[in-house]
Amino acid sequence: MILSLADAEHLVASTFADNGVDAAVAASVAHALVQAEAAGQSGHGLRRVPAYVKQVRTGKVDGRAKPVATLAKPGVLAIDARHGFAYPALDLTVERLPEIVRTQGIALAAIHRSHHAGVMALTVERFAEQGLVAMMFANAPAAMAPWGGRKPLYGTNPIAFAVPVAGGDPLVIDLALSKVARGKVMAAAQKNVDIPADWAFDVEGRPTTDADAAMKGTMAPAGDAKGAALALMVEVLAAGLTGATFSYQASSLFDEKGPPPALGHMIIAIDPDGATGGGTSGRIAQLAQEMGREDGVRLPGRRGLGLRRQAAEQGIDIPQDVLKAIDDLR
Amino acid sequence: MILSLADAEHLVASTFADNGVDAAVAASVAHALVQAEAAGQSGHGLRRVPAYVKQVRTGKVDGRAKPVATLAKPGVLAIDARHGFAYPALDLTVERLPEIVRTQGIALAAIHRSHHAGVMALTVERFAEQGLVAMMFANAPAAMAPWGGRKPLYGTNPIAFAVPVAGGDPLVIDLALSKVARGKVMAAAQKNVDIPADWAFDVEGRPTTDADAAMKGTMAPAGDAKGAALALMVEVLAAGLTGATFSYQASSLFDEKGPPPALGHMIIAIDPDGATGGGTSGRIAQLAQEMGREDGVRLPGRRGLGLRRQAAEQGIDIPQDVLKAIDDLR
Repeated sequence: MILSLADAEHLVASTFADNGVDAAVAASVAHALVQAEAAGQSGHGLRRVPAYVKQVRTGKVDGRAKPVATLAKPGVLAIDARHGFAYPALDLTVERLPEIVRTQGIALAAIHRSHHAGVMALTVERFAEQGLVAMMFANAPAAMAPWGGRKPLYGTNPIAFAVPVAGGDPLVIDLALSKVARGKVMAAAQKNVDIPADWAFDVEGRPTTDADAAMKGTMAPAGDAKGAALALMVEVLAAGLTGATFSYQASSLFDEKGPPPALGHMIIAIDPDGATGGGTSGRIAQLAQEMGREDGVRLPGRRGLGLRRQAAEQGIDIPQDVLKAIDDLR
Repeated sequence: MILSLADAEHLVASTFADNGVDAAVAASVAHALVQAEAAGQSGHGLRRVPAYVKQVRTGKVDGRAKPVATLAKPGVLAIDARHGFAYPALDLTVERLPEIVRTQGIALAAIHRSHHAGVMALTVERFAEQGLVAMMFANAPAAMAPWGGRKPLYGTNPIAFAVPVAGGDPLVIDLALSKVARGKVMAAAQKNVDIPADWAFDVEGRPTTDADAAMKGTMAPAGDAKGAALALMVEVLAAGLTGATFSYQASSLFDEKGPPPALGHMIIAIDPDGATGGGTSGRIAQLAQEMGREDGVRLPGRRGLGLRRQAAEQGIDIPQDVLKAIDDLR
């Protein structure tokens, strides 16, 4: 069924509101999930609605929590998401951090007691739209082991990055540090099909093609030892420095049991002209042009942006099972 | 031949001084190269001395340049390395940035008109020793293509990271975004032996086992498309935002021909307790302890630190050909 973005947002927001979620929170969550769906990231889109709502019902997520921001240092905004959804805290970051960055040249937002960060490209892009560079780091329930280990200690701990480009759309990077998304292994397990041998390890740390064994084990890091090292860096930034729960102690984002996940996100935003005095976005445009000279090269972020523009005009096609699952929550 | 670290530094510093390098610059460069050698990173160690000295002789590196720091914004230190070696600029960063970070909570140093960044672990570690978290990004002469491309556009663009650990040595990460160091391909080409098929691409962008073809082509990024995307992020941070030359326009760090490489480095330093109010290094110690529970897991940075401590006691073993090459420069 094809819905306009506005209709999809209304459907999702009213479903949350029907379940006791504050109206402003519901609007923020609905907007983020619909934009994720529009960007082709259905794993972070409307399929999440049932799990989100069930977590509100058990109190694992506080649907009425309003995030609170404190300027802890001239360049440090500490944000307590208060066990609510991540999106209102991310909205607050986008609202408050840019003015600090314009004065300081660089500033960070440290978000704790938070939840699923969603499509981080959508958050960092909002800084680039305001002429700022942004980096974002998030932790997530444990799914990867340190290199050489078997026990999951880190989430797939994504990194996102956006930079404004003079006269064009920003360059936007958004990548998990696992070789592939865990959702792909989950889908293979549900369909009972094998996975490639380099995607995941079993509980003994051996590469496996058995999706069930992989779900009980750990995801392979992108770039092997290097990806695992970067996942540690993200863990330190997103959880260690924000006061959030470490990935290995965080509860699931998919079920309604247990305490709040209390995850963390760190956003570092930078004035691109702070050190150079000006002209940086023009130089980035030159770099982007150089990348674009070769046919096989895709500028990062442009595909998702194109899909979202198309969805804004033509709406999004929501699968029947997803619509039914949402309807069942009302 | 085994030399104490002090003797090795004296040998290297006096060689630079004999070639017209300012005494303070010579001491800084000698210290960095000897520490790299001590850390087991001989590719960034004393083997670099002849190329460095030849670049001083032709003026490609200004051996008398003193870096200049300007506080461009409350959190932004712009450092002009003035076409000298990187190490005096890095020393200046370590000297000036921490006091800014303690006030601001986060600050960056943007270094431009610089040269080979050396072992970045050694630089970020100096922030952790002062109780601060540091991230460092550097660009380098082009050796990697954007994913899907054939033309080298990025350097192997390393990322380094250090975080203090309560009651222990810091965790230190330092990794190039190529799958393997380019020096390994260079060594295979010199010995005329094949390389594994996943290390590099030929000029047509095809995986190759021929080391000569690989040297003319590009290095494979760690984690494929993800490593290439992160290399773009590093390029933007280290060159775009500092005003340095992009990797694809930078001259070689190995020969004495051409204009100065004019490379860039960005260091972002963070007060680990800025957002949490305290206790962060204790929580990082807890994470490190959790990592250390498994036999197969190595804590990043500990091996290099152990080698350096050993070298401080026992000296370093310098190969005869390296000593002779240095002697020939006097």
